Amino acid sequence: CFVKLYIIRVKIMNNKDMEMLGKQPSAIRQLFEYGKNRKKIIGNDNVFDFSIGNPNVASPKEVTDNLMFLLNNVDPVFLHGYSSSSGHDFVKNAIAAYLNDTFNTNEDGKYIYLTTGAAAGLSIVIHALLNKDEEVIIFTPYWPEYKVFVDKALGKIVDVAPDFNTFLPDFTDLKNKITNKTKIVIINSPNNPTGVIYKEETIKQLANILNEKQKEYGHDIYLLSDEPYRDLIYSNEKYPFITNYYDNSIVVYSFSKSVSLPGERIGYILVGSKVNNKDDIFASVMGAGRALGYVCATTLFQYLIPSILSKTSDLSVYKTNRELLYNSLKEIGYEAIYPEGAFYLFVKALQEDSKEFSEIAKKYELLLVPSDSFGLKGYVRIAYCVSTKQIKDSIPAFKKLYDHYRN
Amino acid sequence: CFVKLYIIRVKIMNNKDMEMLGKQPSAIRQLFEYGKNRKKIIGNDNVFDFSIGNPNVASPKEVTDNLMFLLNNVDPVFLHGYSSSSGHDFVKNAIAAYLNDTFNTNEDGKYIYLTTGAAAGLSIVIHALLNKDEEVIIFTPYWPEYKVFVDKALGKIVDVAPDFNTFLPDFTDLKNKITNKTKIVIINSPNNPTGVIYKEETIKQLANILNEKQKEYGHDIYLLSDEPYRDLIYSNEKYPFITNYYDNSIVVYSFSKSVSLPGERIGYILVGSKVNNKDDIFASVMGAGRALGYVCATTLFQYLIPSILSKTSDLSVYKTNRELLYNSLKEIGYEAIYPEGAFYLFVKALQEDSKEFSEIAKKYELLLVPSDSFGLKGYVRIAYCVSTKQIKDSIPAFKKLYDHYRN
Repeated sequence: CFVKLYIIRVKIMNNKDMEMLGKQPSAIRQLFEYGKNRKKIIGNDNVFDFSIGNPNVASPKEVTDNLMFLLNNVDPVFLHGYSSSSGHDFVKNAIAAYLNDTFNTNEDGKYIYLTTGAAAGLSIVIHALLNKDEEVIIFTPYWPEYKVFVDKALGKIVDVAPDFNTFLPDFTDLKNKITNKTKIVIINSPNNPTGVIYKEETIKQLANILNEKQKEYGHDIYLLSDEPYRDLIYSNEKYPFITNYYDNSIVVYSFSKSVSLPGERIGYILVGSKVNNKDDIFASVMGAGRALGYVCATTLFQYLIPSILSKTSDLSVYKTNRELLYNSLKEIGYEAIYPEGAFYLFVKALQEDSKEFSEIAKKYELLLVPSDSFGLKGYVRIAYCVSTKQIKDSIPAFKKLYDHYRN
Repeated sequence: CFVKLYIIRVKIMNNKDMEMLGKQPSAIRQLFEYGKNRKKIIGNDNVFDFSIGNPNVASPKEVTDNLMFLLNNVDPVFLHGYSSSSGHDFVKNAIAAYLNDTFNTNEDGKYIYLTTGAAAGLSIVIHALLNKDEEVIIFTPYWPEYKVFVDKALGKIVDVAPDFNTFLPDFTDLKNKITNKTKIVIINSPNNPTGVIYKEETIKQLANILNEKQKEYGHDIYLLSDEPYRDLIYSNEKYPFITNYYDNSIVVYSFSKSVSLPGERIGYILVGSKVNNKDDIFASVMGAGRALGYVCATTLFQYLIPSILSKTSDLSVYKTNRELLYNSLKEIGYEAIYPEGAFYLFVKALQEDSKEFSEIAKKYELLLVPSDSFGLKGYVRIAYCVSTKQIKDSIPAFKKLYDHYRN
């Protein structure tokens, strides 16, 4: 009887996968929560929290001004009322016009779906496209949530290694990893966690390989570009917008980083104008959004979008931080990838086990995310979207951490 | 060769379930979109759009005032920055204090998870609790999205019939439908689409049955209460808050209707203080939220919550509308359930096929949602969260529709 009861209990327990996921927050979130508590104990200025990509630079003035304007001037019944599931047409059309103007594309607002941030956008696209056991290729090191979303959609993650000199994809490995089950290839440039940018040449190479493989296997392979850092580039580098290079392209964008609105959860999905059967694909996006419980993107922030499309926060702070942090760490003796965009520095840990390295860094109040959850061992990620003062103040701690390993 | 290619194509096409869902928007959304286009053609005042529960009454003054105050006074880096996944602690604690004060409960902010509206809350809870093929009981007529969320979580919907005199659950049918696979029972009071309220007696009966069945099957059955209309009650009726009556209770609330913020997507999940293994269940909620792509609820609206917990929009408009609409339709000859809460009137269609009835109503510019998608044939739902003028103006059209069937 006990045994029988036990079997029943196991069979109908709550969803253990979800429970485990809830009990093991991402390494990033874990460190972020640790930092919050630690700051309460020893004070904000004494914890060098580099855990999370939470912009330290305020939104541009236009964000606050225009939100106030909307609250003052738009009838709240409309401002806060439901929009269509994919968003208000005037917002979708404004985004398409901005993209066409900026990247010389021919995109249509009709194929834009406003989302609750890029995470929601990625989750929705993955559920929209993927059938059970189909494969999604991601390039290591990668943002850990890709894996979570693909798992939830019952797909399979296939890792492709980087070229360790450039931290661009190893295209030989990519060719070997594409199979007749490959459905999506995810890219993220500027990259989290490395800060590397995929330039035009890389996108072209990628497009060639995918076109060949589409032909070889006789089915569509979607290039899904995760672009929250698109506007965070510290050179005059032209951004190769993927719909110009590959037909089956889907873009996910977020306003979290460019205008410092990470908590508000606002972004969009663009189904590119040359996507095969784009009406079906857009319908799948709509269906997945509905099935997952996304009703519409927050309407106040939808209304805001047209007025801030070409605005950014003061990115010069990140550029300053990058120089200061990169140069200081190099001087101490650390190895790191010089980041061309985003606000992350990817640094070689001083021991193979980067989790242990991150634990030891905590002793010096340095919160560095171990790279294991990015699918690569032996590095840590430093989010430098913090005050320049924090970076200055942290340098002695980085020195001590380095000495800890030398002595 | 053609056949082989065809097989491959079928195997790797985009997710057809999602596509179908996207191509068949809910009957409500379909009618809402029809209405939008129709209004462009014949003018707003000439379409009697009763399709969607989009509040016509403005948010209380405090919403706009306090949003302005927050924008003026809180550092945007904090105001718009990431919160913890389950929300800011001060917001969660304020909600718990409000609930404890209002319903004499003993709830803890620690077990509150702020969500992107009630739809997201329901989707998250269902994914958190359900394993493949487990059963979710819903009472007809029901909000159609329950079915969509349960399908997506690979669960099975089990319908329980209403008592057609009261439109409360038929408890005999309920007892017969609970099996050893039953995991969740969803209730929604005040009810969409009937406006019926589950009073204390009903909740007690329900709790008794569920307690008996839990004992019989030796496992937990969760009562999931979907409460977007909790504050929309037009009498002095006391609301029986379910955590006071049943231990394994989970509540989902939304600020969409009470303070007219449907487009902003803000609400919460409460895992009741007496839920068995509540830490595991809350972890599952966290995990499901993460897996589905919900990072945090919009932080600007999180900050707003503590100041508006006891506020509502001017609900007297809905009360006026209810009286006017109900009495006018009864006078014409329609049969309808007298709604005690929410802002829906559930009216018997004048023919068995309520879809066809809804089509014929369109000829008189009346947009009425057929009841089929609520799991019950032969009725239509009228959302009376519109201007009182629209109701007055629509009465002759309802008369003509009635005459259409009499002649």
